[in-house]
Order: sequence, then C-alpha cells, then structure tokens
Amino acid sequence: MTAFAALMAFQRETEALAQIAGRLGWDQETVMPEGAAEQRGEEMAAIEGVLHARRTDPRVGDWLDAAEAPDPAGARALELIGRAYRRNAAVPARLASEFARVTSLAQGIWAEARARDDVAHFLPTLEKVVALSREKGHALAAAGFGAGDAYDALLDDYEPEATAQGIAAMFDRMRPRLVDLREAVLGAANPPAPLTGQFAEARQIGLARDLATAFGYDWNRGRLDLAVHPFSSGSGNDARITTRVVETDPFNCFYSTIHEVGHATYELGIDAAHFLTPLGQGVSMGVHESQSRIYENQIGRCRAFTGWLHGQMHAVFGGLSVGSAEEFYRTVNRVSAGFIRTEADEVHYNLHIMMRFDLERALFGGGLEVADLEDAWNTRFARDFGVAVDRPAHGVLQDVHWSVGLFGYFPTYALGNVYAGCLHAALRADLPDLDAALASGDARPATDWLREKVQRHGGLYRPAEVIARACGSAPSEEPLLDYLEAKFRAIYGL
Amino acid sequence: MTAFAALMAFQRETEALAQIAGRLGWDQETVMPEGAAEQRGEEMAAIEGVLHARRTDPRVGDWLDAAEAPDPAGARALELIGRAYRRNAAVPARLASEFARVTSLAQGIWAEARARDDVAHFLPTLEKVVALSREKGHALAAAGFGAGDAYDALLDDYEPEATAQGIAAMFDRMRPRLVDLREAVLGAANPPAPLTGQFAEARQIGLARDLATAFGYDWNRGRLDLAVHPFSSGSGNDARITTRVVETDPFNCFYSTIHEVGHATYELGIDAAHFLTPLGQGVSMGVHESQSRIYENQIGRCRAFTGWLHGQMHAVFGGLSVGSAEEFYRTVNRVSAGFIRTEADEVHYNLHIMMRFDLERALFGGGLEVADLEDAWNTRFARDFGVAVDRPAHGVLQDVHWSVGLFGYFPTYALGNVYAGCLHAALRADLPDLDAALASGDARPATDWLREKVQRHGGLYRPAEVIARACGSAPSEEPLLDYLEAKFRAIYGL
Repeated sequence: MTAFAALMAFQRETEALAQIAGRLGWDQETVMPEGAAEQRGEEMAAIEGVLHARRTDPRVGDWLDAAEAPDPAGARALELIGRAYRRNAAVPARLASEFARVTSLAQGIWAEARARDDVAHFLPTLEKVVALSREKGHALAAAGFGAGDAYDALLDDYEPEATAQGIAAMFDRMRPRLVDLREAVLGAANPPAPLTGQFAEARQIGLARDLATAFGYDWNRGRLDLAVHPFSSGSGNDARITTRVVETDPFNCFYSTIHEVGHATYELGIDAAHFLTPLGQGVSMGVHESQSRIYENQIGRCRAFTGWLHGQMHAVFGGLSVGSAEEFYRTVNRVSAGFIRTEADEVHYNLHIMMRFDLERALFGGGLEVADLEDAWNTRFARDFGVAVDRPAHGVLQDVHWSVGLFGYFPTYALGNVYAGCLHAALRADLPDLDAALASGDARPATDWLREKVQRHGGLYRPAEVIARACGSAPSEEPLLDYLEAKFRAIYGL
Repeated sequence: MTAFAALMAFQRETEALAQIAGRLGWDQETVMPEGAAEQRGEEMAAIEGVLHARRTDPRVGDWLDAAEAPDPAGARALELIGRAYRRNAAVPARLASEFARVTSLAQGIWAEARARDDVAHFLPTLEKVVALSREKGHALAAAGFGAGDAYDALLDDYEPEATAQGIAAMFDRMRPRLVDLREAVLGAANPPAPLTGQFAEARQIGLARDLATAFGYDWNRGRLDLAVHPFSSGSGNDARITTRVVETDPFNCFYSTIHEVGHATYELGIDAAHFLTPLGQGVSMGVHESQSRIYENQIGRCRAFTGWLHGQMHAVFGGLSVGSAEEFYRTVNRVSAGFIRTEADEVHYNLHIMMRFDLERALFGGGLEVADLEDAWNTRFARDFGVAVDRPAHGVLQDVHWSVGLFGYFPTYALGNVYAGCLHAALRADLPDLDAALASGDARPATDWLREKVQRHGGLYRPAEVIARACGSAPSEEPLLDYLEAKFRAIYGL
C-alpha cells in the first residue's frame, strides 16, 4: 500500500468516527433523556480523546511526508489533512487539554450567568477562556498560521485564508450603506404590521416539513426534530435538521427550518465520491452560511416564495392577521431594531456581526480587557443601534460563542451573507424564470443550481475560489448591498 | 498510578466507547434515515475497530499481570476484564475479522431468504457462519474456555459458567411436564376467546407509557420509541426501550414494552458506583432475561395486574370484545400452538428453545450438517408441536440469531425463564400483599424488590450466584414448572 493509500484509509476511519461524535451531539440536543447528561459528557470525552489521538498520530506526519497525490482531488485532500495535522501539532497537548476542560465548563457557567443577568458570575471564566484563546492563537501564529497574526490564525480555522484586515476593510465599505438603509427604513411611514395570533405546534411542524420539501431536502437522508437552538448535523448520507416552535411566532419555526435545510442540503449535495474524505464536508463556515442564508433570505423571503407561503399559511391556520400576499411579504421582511443577533432582520444582522468582530479583535491585541468588555459592548451598541442595552442577557451575555472559545467565528456569518449576495445575483441571472417556480412552492431549481455550482464540490476548492467559480468573479459585498437596498427601499416605499 | 488504577481508567474509556457503539445501534433501529444505512455500516466498523484495538491492547495484559485489587468489587472487575481479554486473545485476528465480515453480510442475506422463503439462498452463507463459529469455538476451547468444549466455550460468552450438559439435563427434566401441560391445555374445553378489534396506534403508545410507569421505569434516564423488533439499549444513566404497534393486537405492544422495561430497569437499577465499569451491566443474558420475563409474565400477566390493565383498556379504547376482568385474564394468557418463537405463550416458549438448543448442539459435534438443518428442524417441530412447518419463514429461517453467529445464545432465554420462576417464588414469599398493589396498577414494589435482590449488583456476582443469593437456594426449574402448571391448569379448568 502506498503512503497516500494508507493515509486515506486511516483518514476515512477518522472521518467516520468524527461523524459518530457529531451524531452523539445531535442525540444530546434532540432525544437524550435529561438524566443521561453527565454520563454523556464522559462518552463525548472518550470519543474526542480517540479523535485527538488519531489527528495527532505521528504516522499521519510520516504518511504526509511520503504521500504522492494521484490527482488534484488527492492533492487537495493532502493539503487539508496536512493543514489540520499542523494545526493540531502547533497547539501543545497541555494547552489543548486545558482549553477543552475550561470551555466545556464555561458553557454551563455562561448559561447560568445569562439566565441570571449576572456578568460578574461569568467574567472570571471568560478571562480564562480569552487567555487560553490568546495563547492558542499565538501558538498557531508561531507555526505560521494566519501569517503570524494570532487572531487571523484562529479565524483561519473557520474561514481559511480570510484575514481580519480584509474583512475589516470590507466591513468599512458595508457599514455606511447599511446604516443609511437602516435609518431610512426605521424612519419610513407606514411600516408593515407584525403577524399576530396563535399557531398550533403540530401545524407549524407540518408546514415546516412542507417548506423543507419545497427546497428539495432529501428526507431519505435526513430528518426533522425539535431542539432548543436549531442546528443541522451530519455529513454524507445523514444530514439532519432541527427547528423550534413558538406558538405566537411561526416565522421562527419556518425560517429556522429553511436556514437549516440550507446547511444540510449543502452537505447532502456534495459528490458522493467525497463522502468520508477531507473533501466530504462544506469547505468553510462562510460558504456554509452562504447556503443557509440564500435559502432563508434571498429565496425564502422573496416576494414570489412568500406569496406561496401566504397561501399555505391560510390553508393550514385559517384567517391570518395579515390579509393580502403583498402585505404578508412586507410583514415577513419587517425591519425592527432589536438587541438579539439571532432574531435580527436582514438589514440589521451584519451590524451585529461587525460590532462583535471589532470587539474580539480589540481583545486580541487591541488593548481591550475582559473586565471592560461589557462597557465596550454597551457603548458600541448604543452608537450603532441607537438604544441602550437593557440587560446583559440582551447584551454581552447573549451569544454562546465566546464561552466556548470561538474567537474568529463571528465574521463568517457576515461573509456568508456576502457570499449569498454574490450567489443570488448569479443565480437570478442564470434562472430568469425562477420566480415562477418559487410562486408555486418549488425552490428546487435554486437547489439544483447551488448544488451544481457550489455544493457538489465540498472541500475541493478554497472558500473564495468556490464562490468565484460559481459567480464568475471574486466575492464582493456589492451584490448583497445592492440587493438589500433595492428590496427594503421598495418594501418601505422609499 | 498503580496498575489497577491505570487499567480501570483505560477500561472506563472503553466502556464509554462501547456505550457510544450501542447508542449508534439504537439510532439505526429507531430514527436513522433509510438512506444512511451504508454510511452507518462504515461508522459502526470504525468504532468497533477502536473497541477491538482497546480490548486486545497488550497494555491490558500487562496491567492485569501487575494489578492488585483493593476490594472484592475490584477483584471481580479484574476477573471480568481478564476473562474478556483472554477471550479476545484466544481468537486469532484473522478469524475475528472474517467472522465480523461474514456475519455482517449474512444478516442481510438471511433477511432476503426469509422474505422469499428461500432456504437455498441462505445455506451457503450459513455454511460459512457455522464453519467460522466452529473455528471460533475450538479456538476458545483450546484456550481453556468451556472446559475445552467448543459449544460450551461459545455459551460461556452469554452465560458464564453454564454448560450444555447441565442445561440439557435441566431441559430433560422440564420437557415431559411442559409437554403434558401443553397437551392438557390444548385439549381443554372452553378455551379463552382471543381479543378482537382495532386499537389506534397513539392510544396503544399512550397506554404503553403508562405500563412502563407502572413498573417504575425511570423516564428521566430513558425513553420509548418504535422499532421493527423491540429492544432495549444502553447502560448506566441512559437505558432506552422500544416497542411496536399492531393495530389488531395491542398485547404485542403492551407486553413488548413491559419486557423491555424489565431489561432497561435492570440496567438502570445497578448501583451507580458500578456505571462505566465492568460491573456496570447485567451479568449475563440469562439473568437479563429473568428480569424481562418476570416483568412480562409472572407480574404483567398475573390476575391482579391484568385486572388493572383491563380497566385501563376499557377507559382508553372503550368497549372490548372481552367483557369481564376474569375473561380478560384468560384471554391475555391464551395458549395456542404456533410456529413462531417470539409469539409463543408461556407454555410453549421453552419448547421452542429446547428444539433450537438440541439442533445447534448437533451442529457442534453432533454430526448434523447445515445442508440437513431444515429437515432436522421440520422433523423435530412436527414431533414437538404436532404440526408440520408450512413455510421456511415459519421454520428454520425465522430467527436472526444463527445468521449473526449467535450459537449458544438460545438456551439463555430458557435459563431466564427458569431464573424468573425462582425469583417469582421468592418475591411472592417476601411480599404477600403484592397483588393489592398490582391490582391498582403499581408494580413498583416488585421492581424495588428486584432492584435490591438482583439489579443493583450488576456484574458483582456470578449469574447463578446472584439468583441463589436473591432466592436463598440454587436455581432450579421446579418453581417455574410449578407456577406454569398451577396457573394454566386453573385458567383452563383442568
């Protein structure tokens, strides 16, 4: 057996074990009995230990040194395995283990602090997480990741080859146009009415299933369950989605479902030949988010598709508080200032991200200390959103990310929106009749286009490259901003 | 760290990984999307590979040589680890891997053959499985298991320290009394009527949940789902059950549920200090089956409990085809000759087992060849049950066990019934008022007694020892036969 074949066989087992760890996570968030939590922690630690040992196995280094790729896909697989191996090798075992230990406890402490609106309860833990994350970033930077920059070295794990400098420059170009749009929309006369009423859980779930079907979600290789925080899980031939139900807010369920269908359909759309190889998963968090976002927003919230959804809701729930399809479209896209990122509309969402990005960069070399983070958050929020944060759970404590050491992750959400903007422009140019299908509740032509242009490649091309290949030009924020301005100026009669 | 501590820490991770493999099996049989089957096979192979490597890790042998147990539980843990290690070491890697490969394919081929009633389709595969099983039995016997006997060496995996000779002698004592009882019952005038009607799935599941609650099933550490073949899964703080629904036969759902509650409650009832140690699971298949059988039969089908169930069924389903509680009790315990082991009543069940036990012993040194197995089955069935097998799916193809190489497993079902008979006699002697609780739908006093006497010990004592400690005397078939004769002679007015 050649070194390449030996490495790929070893890696295939590792990928299969990683799928198992992911499946355990799904189980934990959907069906696990409550009393099993502590034992599950020990089970997860055991499988993570196995994965860590395989990912840092010295034989991988030897095989990498000796392996010759038979084709471009093989070369890319070697590149991805080598990158992951060097990242793992760059972080000392002591630091990796301490990072795992502290962040696993930190998530629970953060949840307690958020429930009690008690920043002080979380601060000592967050101090530790930030210190360990800085140490990890510096260790990776010393090994050459992120071109020697600690924050970029962390960001590189989620969006390879992106840099904070590039993202900051892009955000600087985006912010004025988003702020202008936001102010114009919030000042407009005759805003859309919110949807009111009670929407029974079983009917919401039934329609959520229809929505997933409308986007071509493959039920033979997936399933829908309830979870407190919706997520998708799994790669290859088993990519499951979750949603949640709020009886007064069916859009929460519906658009969470469509969002997760985007993620899961990306995984399911990858060429089967890549399954259980390093190319068998979405290539980056940003590209992943581009799929969930284009499904949720550019397609799911467009006039043609909401027209169909309006009819479905009428049929399922009877009379709605919003009468006409046009008014329903405006209601779905209603813009309102709010504290919470995950509830933000398309106009506000990226502003939430920009703020987090600047704060975490300030924590990494910008002179901001954890003790001052809440003040920095509140000051910035008041400036960007025009309102004072009313309680920490609506402010600095709202997101789980920092508690588990996910620094460098937030900007990938905005990158996903930018990529979605590019893809949407190209999609509409290629499929001029898409609205006719969407108006009849069929979004599969969009899925087919995205599968062909993006999804099937999995990890074969680099993130920016896969978007550029799909769109015919390098990623840019312009299509997203043009789309947002056109859409919301029309909705708000500006 | 002492060798004992190092071994126990290593073993604890192995047990946690084994729980994960079990959870994947649960997922596969309950919630997994169909299209994920092939990928799941690869995932299962990966985790089984990890488990096999750990179970045969030479360090375990070194630790076993050096370890000193601090207490009797530690000594028993060393004994169980040593036994498993020596069993794994006794089977050559080539044979273990070939056995795994052939049996994993054989199950599918068996299922096809059964669906098509095509014995010839299965025979070449069964030849291989039997040949590999014989080879495995001889390898284990050569290492001293089963006192040098190949069949006993296989049996020893499911019921340590049981011997085919001892079981055969016991079956010889049981058979005449069971045959006499069977003939008397089938010849009786005025047999009970079967239950007829349609019983909606949701209501069956609702009452199944109530039944599990009645036996004290801990919903905080378990759950109930549907499966094609009901099973229980998991140890420690996560032991789940499954059931199935046939709309014309609610007893199928109800008694499958109670049976699986018996298995799961055994696991959940083990002292928490034993969880994720070698003592943290039921000690043998026979003792496990004793718990499921006493729940299902001696308690679940007794007059007091069926009286309560009759009232519940009236409340849930409205009028029943069986009017009085007494007639309902007779219907629940209706005896009828049938081809299928899993559908057999208490009078017939052990006769099915005895036949399989004799056939598989004949395959292991008794001169029976696979090519003649169907004839042997049909001849024996006609003799024991007085009817000719009408199709292979009702005969030699009905059970999955042999296809997956489970030789030596069948007799543990009858041992479980024998143990249940012993435990039931002791339970009734200790709790003279049990019927009053059962008549009000509360079987928890029985669970409490079984937990205290049997369940909490997990693997601490040897199988026959745990029964003897609970009952005050060595296991014997007498209590079971006395119980069956008294119960069914009364029901059938003999």
